[in-house]
Amino acid sequence: MLYLDDLKPGDRHTGASVTVSAEDIVAFARQFDPQPFHLDAEAAKDTVFGGLAASGWHTAALTMRMIVDGPHTFAGGFIGMGVESLNWPRPVRAGDTLTAESEVLEVRPSTKRPDQGVVRVRVITRNQNGEDVLHWTANLLVQRRTGADASAEVDRRAAAE
Amino acid sequence: MLYLDDLKPGDRHTGASVTVSAEDIVAFARQFDPQPFHLDAEAAKDTVFGGLAASGWHTAALTMRMIVDGPHTFAGGFIGMGVESLNWPRPVRAGDTLTAESEVLEVRPSTKRPDQGVVRVRVITRNQNGEDVLHWTANLLVQRRTGADASAEVDRRAAAE
Repeated sequence: MLYLDDLKPGDRHTGASVTVSAEDIVAFARQFDPQPFHLDAEAAKDTVFGGLAASGWHTAALTMRMIVDGPHTFAGGFIGMGVESLNWPRPVRAGDTLTAESEVLEVRPSTKRPDQGVVRVRVITRNQNGEDVLHWTANLLVQRRTGADASAEVDRRAAAE
Repeated sequence: MLYLDDLKPGDRHTGASVTVSAEDIVAFARQFDPQPFHLDAEAAKDTVFGGLAASGWHTAALTMRMIVDGPHTFAGGFIGMGVESLNWPRPVRAGDTLTAESEVLEVRPSTKRPDQGVVRVRVITRNQNGEDVLHWTANLLVQRRTGADASAEVDRRAAAE
């Protein structure tokens, strides 16, 4: 469980991985983005994607899942206050195996709320060839160690010195 | 079917509407964002959301669906090249009815590809009380009228004048 106080710029956290099937791509598209290039491999051939491609929102949702399933949990949850940029350098194709990695860019304790702050992160999702399929930079609300937790942490650090 | 040539800054297009149930919120969260505040109304009470709230990615995916289901179809599809900003001014709750609206901010014909260009749009999704639940600004790849289509359009406009 990571608190704001545990994070510093440059920290990297690798999330879980996921393999995406054609069925997954089509099921998401039927529900949320029913356009030909996300629904049907044949119809997708004559589009800008040149073949079946996952909806960008599917790639974003899968990225969220990989982060939540990863070994690093942020105190209070992984709560996006806002996304500064989100793009898809290349499409996700059926059979791709994705991995998400986040990097801490900035840590800003709140001046009004001693129990929380904002952590700016960049998330990169790559496919099995190491090619980037999603970039996203977001500001997250993260809890701080406070009260008993904070005191215990101070004691622990003092003891370690 | 709207081509890049049909669009100008200030144009607004209202999409479809959708009502979100608690079951929808939980089903999306189980698949893509399994955090307590998206999964369980009781567990969500003690979180920053104060009750069950839809994943922001669910709100974004529903917004995409409302745009695709709307009466205005962009030639070549609604293809995001990148999102400049995405945020969630307030959470989506069970029972909310959402409506998406997009506004054209800029129209930029490609200097390299006479058959396409980029349209910058702002999308706002509101709930049944008219409160904003999602803002997103994105650049879309949109097809131009070319060849026969373009000639027909020129003829049509000339005839109308």
